[in-house]
Amino acid sequence: MNWRYATKSMNGTLVPQEKIDIILESIRLSASSIGLQPYNVLVISDRDLLEKIQPIAFNQGQITQASHLIIFAAWDKITQERVDAFISNIAVSRGVEESSLGIMRGYGDNFVAQSAEDNFKWAARQAYIALGTALVAAASVEVDSTPMEGFNTEALDELLGLKERGLKSVSILPIGYRDAEKDWLAPLKKVRTPKEELFVFDGELLVS
Amino acid sequence: MNWRYATKSMNGTLVPQEKIDIILESIRLSASSIGLQPYNVLVISDRDLLEKIQPIAFNQGQITQASHLIIFAAWDKITQERVDAFISNIAVSRGVEESSLGIMRGYGDNFVAQSAEDNFKWAARQAYIALGTALVAAASVEVDSTPMEGFNTEALDELLGLKERGLKSVSILPIGYRDAEKDWLAPLKKVRTPKEELFVFDGELLVS
Repeated sequence: MNWRYATKSMNGTLVPQEKIDIILESIRLSASSIGLQPYNVLVISDRDLLEKIQPIAFNQGQITQASHLIIFAAWDKITQERVDAFISNIAVSRGVEESSLGIMRGYGDNFVAQSAEDNFKWAARQAYIALGTALVAAASVEVDSTPMEGFNTEALDELLGLKERGLKSVSILPIGYRDAEKDWLAPLKKVRTPKEELFVFDGELLVS
Repeated sequence: MNWRYATKSMNGTLVPQEKIDIILESIRLSASSIGLQPYNVLVISDRDLLEKIQPIAFNQGQITQASHLIIFAAWDKITQERVDAFISNIAVSRGVEESSLGIMRGYGDNFVAQSAEDNFKWAARQAYIALGTALVAAASVEVDSTPMEGFNTEALDELLGLKERGLKSVSILPIGYRDAEKDWLAPLKKVRTPKEELFVFDGELLVS
């Protein structure tokens, strides 16, 4: 956690496939509410495509200096089809009847009944759990990363045809290796909220 | 990541302080957009208070079986005061003049100019990065945890006086130790979206 930072300059070195696999598997194993994982994760390493994405992300250098770009795209709507696939996957994975999963189906149906806006707001939060997991996983195998919100989500969705897939991009994560000499942030001290300000303990709470 | 799961029954054993410290420090070191960390984290271990919280969270047993309850509460609004404190902390931590942090201040001011609703939506996502980090950190020291959204946020905010602090709870995380015999989920296979469905690679994208 102390080693990682939002790398501002990468050196173009490719990340070995076994490390990519560890990072992706950590994302796949991430927690989500009711386990629905209401997002997809795009993995881009094609150089031409990264060059097309770069201007959509304020021309940030890491987009093309990275080994891979991971894109977190939340479901735009929790549909009945998506809930059905979710229930079916649990049933098949655990070798149980779908009829035994009534409680899970109920949770899923509650989401289907909500508005697309509420669905997306919730789905985006779940994707951020996976993003948090990905940051730790990458650092654990000494791969640098730069979580980014600074990009035009509509333009990226358009470029990648995400709307047709029922997705909206929420954050992007170039992963690769820091170029420590060119990165202005690399030598600077990591700054975080002091613990006395971030945390609130029992004793400080006035509860009537 | 394979060891952890959303523990449904805990045994009441307390987590040693050094492990609590590791989990909290991981939360504190979590990434956030521009590094603002627009949330506070409440840490509750007082048994009376946990008993008051339990009915607000559908009487879920883990609330009182846990060693500690971690509450992620996002800022309800990015205020000028909060941005000022953020800039001041960077300046002090790095020993630089605040006037050299114009770009960071600009980012902060952009958030101040947005609506409270957009601020909160964004702040909640950042809190979920910290939640994702906390889940991995807890598992890394073999502490169980159960991320929960199933609680009445307004009632919890009311009980803990969060509104007065400019906060809104977004998720809660009991941490402790599994009661493997009583936990129906403990023996069941972990289910996740198959990788062929979760991930989309370059080659599958139709880009014009």
